Amino acid sequence: MAQTIKQYIEQLHDGNKLALARCITIVENNLVGATEILHSLNSKKNVPIIGITGPPGAGKSTLVNALIETLTKNNSDFKIGIVAIDPTSPFNYGSLLGDRVRMANHFNNPNIFIRSLATRGSLGGLSAKTIEITDVMRASDFDYIIVETVGVGQSEVEIVGLADTTIVVLVPEAGDDVQALKSGIMEIADIFVVNKADRAGANTFLKNIYDLLHSQTKKEWNTTVIKTVASKSEGIDELIESIKKHQSLHLTNHKKYQMIADKVYTLIQSNRMKDISKSILLEHLQKQNINSDFNIYKFAEKYFEEKKSK
Amino acid sequence: MAQTIKQYIEQLHDGNKLALARCITIVENNLVGATEILHSLNSKKNVPIIGITGPPGAGKSTLVNALIETLTKNNSDFKIGIVAIDPTSPFNYGSLLGDRVRMANHFNNPNIFIRSLATRGSLGGLSAKTIEITDVMRASDFDYIIVETVGVGQSEVEIVGLADTTIVVLVPEAGDDVQALKSGIMEIADIFVVNKADRAGANTFLKNIYDLLHSQTKKEWNTTVIKTVASKSEGIDELIESIKKHQSLHLTNHKKYQMIADKVYTLIQSNRMKDISKSILLEHLQKQNINSDFNIYKFAEKYFEEKKSK
Repeated sequence: MAQTIKQYIEQLHDGNKLALARCITIVENNLVGATEILHSLNSKKNVPIIGITGPPGAGKSTLVNALIETLTKNNSDFKIGIVAIDPTSPFNYGSLLGDRVRMANHFNNPNIFIRSLATRGSLGGLSAKTIEITDVMRASDFDYIIVETVGVGQSEVEIVGLADTTIVVLVPEAGDDVQALKSGIMEIADIFVVNKADRAGANTFLKNIYDLLHSQTKKEWNTTVIKTVASKSEGIDELIESIKKHQSLHLTNHKKYQMIADKVYTLIQSNRMKDISKSILLEHLQKQNINSDFNIYKFAEKYFEEKKSK
Repeated sequence: MAQTIKQYIEQLHDGNKLALARCITIVENNLVGATEILHSLNSKKNVPIIGITGPPGAGKSTLVNALIETLTKNNSDFKIGIVAIDPTSPFNYGSLLGDRVRMANHFNNPNIFIRSLATRGSLGGLSAKTIEITDVMRASDFDYIIVETVGVGQSEVEIVGLADTTIVVLVPEAGDDVQALKSGIMEIADIFVVNKADRAGANTFLKNIYDLLHSQTKKEWNTTVIKTVASKSEGIDELIESIKKHQSLHLTNHKKYQMIADKVYTLIQSNRMKDISKSILLEHLQKQNINSDFNIYKFAEKYFEEKKSK
């Protein structure tokens, strides 16, 4: 007999990885039982969520790989869940696959759970699905959950709302001037990793980062800068030390509430837009006569009103 | 006597720049008259919108600067509107200001209109405000409108919904392997600009881009690659040629409808979320008792229902 949702939920909370995978699939695709699963989650579990972000090519996946290796080498019982957020893009599939292949040596380790998640590009930023799936992962028995996102920009700024510790990975080549640090990534980083630190120009780059950090106003936690060569596992021990140190700080109540508010906002937005999709809109538009009198603001208002009255 | 909205709208459509600035301010801050202005816009005006995006430090602002210089040198009557989208970030203010200062020599040219727009980080991606303000600009008498966005990521992928021609600016240092091209920017580019092309490693980088482009399926327009050194105005003529060539293609009806659908989606989303803000949510949350039984999914549902029934 097929298992019931109730059984899945029990097994999920017991740390069963098959149940976890199944629950994620149910939530990701909004299948029957999704709400039941989400309503079963509680805030008791305080699994550290480590967000890793940075520009393409900075070596985020290699760094995650090195982190897994070092964390599990020191403690074979250490359980790590990884959510890799891929922008949906058929053209990029090959390149993303390359990253995942590098992680493949961990696929057979029962203590490592890797889940790729397409952001679907519908909203930009962290999707409601990312929040939901990370929360489902939290219900399992991981010691760390790592959320890896691609790119720098708005979407990465929003990782702050999800991660307890945010690591921004940069390479010296990402721009040897402070320009590289301008798009809002400066203040989201709890830890800066300068990866590929054996490259030429690394020292100038590091100096520029330190200079910029010095101009920051002092706060509870002073942003740490760690040099790594992830492909050779150099600097990973220092990085783990720094993560632990940051985790040992208690989040201020204000920050905690702010993170919850961000999540709730995203969930409500996703809920309010679930009756509408771009493809439905496209269909509707194609029935319109788009001549010179067409005004999208009037159209949006009309469409909005029509939906509401249904 | 103060001018009426009706007069502003008339002057806006006549190309008056003071009226344009005033209308943008009204729309940006949702002041009385905003709806009237938006409803006055029509689709007759076919001003090319050129989107310029790319990672921080790629030299986008310098490139925009060089474009303005070359376009106005060849034709002193050429009118250009620029929307510079800045992520809201006090810490970065200095660096962004630096870019704007470089554009400052155009401030006194009556044919150049520059408007900075903070994205406010609320939604990620292109905001409804960006769409609205670009549309208001289109009602004036510009020959080109340039929309410059910072960063690479989800937000940049969405510029496709706004721009007729999308230019992705890269530097050889952005990663000398194909990794750099993985986050969805490959397929949004109509034109690739490899800026700072006088740097070491530029040729390898270019070769990698060409190799990647060759693996793309053929389409109406084959992505062009232009080498520039924007700070020395090198390659700008070629870039303008390429922009003109791309503009001379007619957008397929499907792409045109898709762009409208994207815009309408964003407008509806913004409309549906206007009764709620993260700060209101935060206030509401702080009144809650967030203990181990607290479940954000139940809370989001409850909050959503409460708002709806009001």
